[in-house]
Amino acid sequence: MRAPTARTIGASYAAGLDALSRFVLRGGKRVRPAFAWTGWVGAGGDPAHDAADAVVSAVSSLELIQGCALVHDDIIDASTTRRGFPTVHVEYAGLHREQGWSGDPLHFGTSAAILLGDLALAMADDMLRESGIDDAALRRAQPVWSAMRTEVLGGQFLDIVAEASRDESIDTAYAIDRYKTAAYTIERPLHLGAAIAGADEGLVASYREFGTDIGVAFQLRDDLLGVFGDPELTGKPSGDDLRAGKRTVLVASALETADRDDPVAAADIRASLGTALTDGDVARLRARLTDLGAVADVEAQIDRLTGRALTALAESTATPDAKDALAAMAETATRRTA
Amino acid sequence: MRAPTARTIGASYAAGLDALSRFVLRGGKRVRPAFAWTGWVGAGGDPAHDAADAVVSAVSSLELIQGCALVHDDIIDASTTRRGFPTVHVEYAGLHREQGWSGDPLHFGTSAAILLGDLALAMADDMLRESGIDDAALRRAQPVWSAMRTEVLGGQFLDIVAEASRDESIDTAYAIDRYKTAAYTIERPLHLGAAIAGADEGLVASYREFGTDIGVAFQLRDDLLGVFGDPELTGKPSGDDLRAGKRTVLVASALETADRDDPVAAADIRASLGTALTDGDVARLRARLTDLGAVADVEAQIDRLTGRALTALAESTATPDAKDALAAMAETATRRTA
Repeated sequence: MRAPTARTIGASYAAGLDALSRFVLRGGKRVRPAFAWTGWVGAGGDPAHDAADAVVSAVSSLELIQGCALVHDDIIDASTTRRGFPTVHVEYAGLHREQGWSGDPLHFGTSAAILLGDLALAMADDMLRESGIDDAALRRAQPVWSAMRTEVLGGQFLDIVAEASRDESIDTAYAIDRYKTAAYTIERPLHLGAAIAGADEGLVASYREFGTDIGVAFQLRDDLLGVFGDPELTGKPSGDDLRAGKRTVLVASALETADRDDPVAAADIRASLGTALTDGDVARLRARLTDLGAVADVEAQIDRLTGRALTALAESTATPDAKDALAAMAETATRRTA
Repeated sequence: MRAPTARTIGASYAAGLDALSRFVLRGGKRVRPAFAWTGWVGAGGDPAHDAADAVVSAVSSLELIQGCALVHDDIIDASTTRRGFPTVHVEYAGLHREQGWSGDPLHFGTSAAILLGDLALAMADDMLRESGIDDAALRRAQPVWSAMRTEVLGGQFLDIVAEASRDESIDTAYAIDRYKTAAYTIERPLHLGAAIAGADEGLVASYREFGTDIGVAFQLRDDLLGVFGDPELTGKPSGDDLRAGKRTVLVASALETADRDDPVAAADIRASLGTALTDGDVARLRARLTDLGAVADVEAQIDRLTGRALTALAESTATPDAKDALAAMAETATRRTA
């Protein structure tokens, strides 16, 4: 960890590091370290062995990459709260206002959050490298780590371009799910754990098939919850994704069918997405997505991907306990209601 | 390099990578790779040896860190041009407008540039790791690399806080020069080259003393040029730093003296900094900085730091050729007019 070095540089930077630590430690489901850890165990890693502590540290570094991704994403999405607290750029805009500083508080908040996100990305690297895993394991882990970073940034990039350009293609929506969610959340964390353990190519391939399919299915479930989820369970306003105009596989499928069969529905969906919808509007759009068969299509796709993933897992050489754990995690990721 | 992976993710991301490549390859003085290379040669690295190609690649990765720093800094400073071309966020805002995309072009430009800056930081890492330097050299290089990243981000962070809070302390101005410029531009690049070569602690210490002092002197020269430089030579409008309200050692020294001896000058400087100054205002402020002795103080400090740095260099165990080269680079860095 670079924390001690960062602390000696200046008081405001040390305070920034504290803000970042609070943000990262505040919560979240730790999905990525959990998959990486299970990937390691499933490839023969022994949790009772002394070396396991280093692996815990190595897989925990994924939370710092996630710290960077969230801090920067919150700027990009102009999100004001996360996990019930102000986002980092909003927190720093608030500090600017409280202190009566000069310049624009929002611009200052954005600037501070850009730099703290960069710091999280740098610290993630430091944490992996200084985790204590041996040199050979580190050498195997680094290309996976590197591919994961490139992929998640690519998925985010495709996402902002798709949203700005109102891209309606199902292929684009799947590519975003593939890179922004599946590779980053499940496939590469599992691969990372396997690489640290020195797994053979066969197990790596099985993990990656499983991770890609469950990761995409996880995102498809998220898309359904973003439109149909119970606000009491999800913690988000009902139909949030429709108001945000998110370009999902669900919406892209509905538009494809509507363009063919129901031009009125197509026009309504296009005119409504990304606008300030009433609850009545949300109810009408939900009905349209259901009537067009898009909901059933997405549910069928979740089933298909989950089935294929579970087959790849079952046929893999992962240890029996890890298979059980991963199957349960797959169930949670794809059947959840929140 | 992650370029091939990034290219397979999607057309818009591949185009982003091209924009980033153009930006990084467009120019700049390559100061950091030059110091790192000279540090390596001065520690006994042999440019004629086959391994030298890997070192060229390793030290060139500093330009990708610089790519991230510039792309993100241009957002923070709201700069519209760099090296005669639009900055990355301005280029992407322009693309958004040309394509008639939805949402705010400036916000889109900022979002794209945040992600491409992150990608540059990630690729810098990949380039160092895949440079071909041997494992032992890489292991020695990585903590230096890591400290440098933490320091430059810290220097940038202190800088935005100092500017927003109108910090007038000379110590803060020096801390920013130390971390944002000296460590990042000279001290750590030299240290990196030395680490790759496997230099002993004595030479590393000498390099770091030299690099810190010349780096701060370089920034002090830059501060003088930002106020007194000839626009025909610097390529920047005369008195640019005064209009931007930059908190430099020069300004902090002038204010300290003025508060003691000349309250009218102090009030004028405070009221003028960071405002839309006429050429007459710039001339008046220049006269004040000179009359208050701040210019002479900064010139004396540049001399003192340069002298101390050259002594450390002369007494070091660096090779004679490298000593000559570094002394010449120190001269250029601290005596330049542009």
